[in-house]
Amino acid sequence: MSTAAEVSAIPSRTRMRQEIQEQPDALRRTLDALRPAVRELRSVARDCRHVLFIARGSSDNAAVYGQYLCSVRGGRLGTLASPSVATAYRATPDLGGVLVVAVSQSGATDEIVEGMAWARERGARTVAVTNVAGSPLASTADVALVTEAGEERAVPATKTYTTQLTALAVLGLSLSGDDGALRGLDAVPDAVARALDSASAAEEMAARLTYLDRVVVAGRGYASSTALELALKLKEACYVSASGLSYADLLHGPIAVVDPMTPALLVAAGDGPVLPGMTALTARVAAAGAHVYGIGGDEEFARACRSALPGTDLPEHLAPMALIVPGQLLVEALARAKGIDPDRPRGLRKVTQTDARSAT
Amino acid sequence: MSTAAEVSAIPSRTRMRQEIQEQPDALRRTLDALRPAVRELRSVARDCRHVLFIARGSSDNAAVYGQYLCSVRGGRLGTLASPSVATAYRATPDLGGVLVVAVSQSGATDEIVEGMAWARERGARTVAVTNVAGSPLASTADVALVTEAGEERAVPATKTYTTQLTALAVLGLSLSGDDGALRGLDAVPDAVARALDSASAAEEMAARLTYLDRVVVAGRGYASSTALELALKLKEACYVSASGLSYADLLHGPIAVVDPMTPALLVAAGDGPVLPGMTALTARVAAAGAHVYGIGGDEEFARACRSALPGTDLPEHLAPMALIVPGQLLVEALARAKGIDPDRPRGLRKVTQTDARSAT
Repeated sequence: MSTAAEVSAIPSRTRMRQEIQEQPDALRRTLDALRPAVRELRSVARDCRHVLFIARGSSDNAAVYGQYLCSVRGGRLGTLASPSVATAYRATPDLGGVLVVAVSQSGATDEIVEGMAWARERGARTVAVTNVAGSPLASTADVALVTEAGEERAVPATKTYTTQLTALAVLGLSLSGDDGALRGLDAVPDAVARALDSASAAEEMAARLTYLDRVVVAGRGYASSTALELALKLKEACYVSASGLSYADLLHGPIAVVDPMTPALLVAAGDGPVLPGMTALTARVAAAGAHVYGIGGDEEFARACRSALPGTDLPEHLAPMALIVPGQLLVEALARAKGIDPDRPRGLRKVTQTDARSAT
Repeated sequence: MSTAAEVSAIPSRTRMRQEIQEQPDALRRTLDALRPAVRELRSVARDCRHVLFIARGSSDNAAVYGQYLCSVRGGRLGTLASPSVATAYRATPDLGGVLVVAVSQSGATDEIVEGMAWARERGARTVAVTNVAGSPLASTADVALVTEAGEERAVPATKTYTTQLTALAVLGLSLSGDDGALRGLDAVPDAVARALDSASAAEEMAARLTYLDRVVVAGRGYASSTALELALKLKEACYVSASGLSYADLLHGPIAVVDPMTPALLVAAGDGPVLPGMTALTARVAAAGAHVYGIGGDEEFARACRSALPGTDLPEHLAPMALIVPGQLLVEALARAKGIDPDRPRGLRKVTQTDARSAT
């Protein structure tokens, strides 16, 4: 896959690994910066019954988490937009009563900036989640939630992803009106720090998975965001053909893909109503002749897997902020084991413009 | 992959192939059955500004088409639901002013039936799209759009999928209030019949793709539904690790996956605002060292592909009903070429229940 010269050029200490480890501090800074926004978020969302997320790539995976949190905790139906409805087709639905949340690390992806402008023209209230203060997204939204990830130089998003999740948690829990739930966020940075302890276990799992060419990654409910993000990372940084699926979508067809050379990687929080189904899924996948690797869950889930990385003791609705961390460590280690520099995967740049235009 | 005995047991004339060929008649019957529902659909949607689709598997891919049509033509924001918000988390958003469209071939998938019941309790108006009159979904919706696909016996959905698209076209164009656009549907069954002419070209392409183990399938806008459905079929019936993606999502990371052994299959309507981008994408993918295969588009698109199957001359907003047909033929031929019986893929049954319950 890579020449010996290329392999030797891969630093043993990658930027990606460094940025993974910066996450507890990045989340702490982001929480400190965004706690004061609660009142403003409640105000902008007051007359909104629907939250519509506009995003792409890792930001879209973060939005999946936001969608569950707004729907289950925030009392508003959360769904994802198809940006081309705005940018390619210039559709004209009435978006009164809709809170549009545009998520973009750079705040400068034209498609997302245009999508948010379109939504405002159509009557929506707007929130921006971005890592860049003063970016087009931040400067034009009704409320800007600017994350404090600092500069991210590796192409695969890590700390910008988890700080987006944090901003979306502040949003969703603000909408819930439950101040106790908001205080629960204080436990997140330490939980993310503990998740970093799985680094050597992730390295060992990566050493067993160097053959990996195809994989199915699945989660359910809140953790489906983690499964989608982990699959994206495996594609970006390890060139693995990874299908990221919800538990249910896996059963509706793609389970046919798993076989002895196509393992499943299942991701679960340590509690919640979807955990028993995820544990049962391990047996379904094993019955198809595939190896099952796990991240998180409880003891029973971990025992049902061929091998599992520890997850997090955060409650299910906060777990995705920590649950992705063992996955990030696995991806970073697997990329190196496969002779790929995870900081500079082929074909990718840090800011992706969907259509050919000058980047702003 | 299969023993010689298994290969010889695969009929040269599969049910899947038979059911693909039944589609023009099935669509004609479905249109005849559903044209009278226009007035009722306009009535039930009168106070709705948002259309929320609840579905899984192929039905969910059909819903992606419905979402574009409702948003772009029907004047209502169309989005997809995450069924577990209802079934696992029992969320309590206010769904007043929401038209919920539940899509299920059998009309008996518990998760979808429960999801629709939940939506009604939360204040939504409801439409069912199902192939079974008298099914739980059909008998409890405000409006039931019962497709006339007839019995489907092959596990991979073909005629039940395209008749779902047809029902969703009737819905979306009814909401548009444009009677001329509704009359445009009359051209669809003949266009689907013409699409069957690509059978021998699909067989030839399949013969060149027997090595296929990983593939990226992409489309944009309306045709993204076709890309997702084609990827699902390749997973179900050919055990190929197929990533079904929108054009934009492909650029936001997964483009790193393509390489000389991981081709891209690009799907496009013959006109519309997203076609130039799809044609340009062929060069991006080829520059990554991958082979590009196409379905549809215009002459320029087809020339830019290594090999392309003809698509359809239906306008973009109706094209998905015919554009999937060459893909179905390709999947059916590729399954046989790989020694798989497409009528009975491993691990799958005709009606999937997401959770372990008795099928109804």
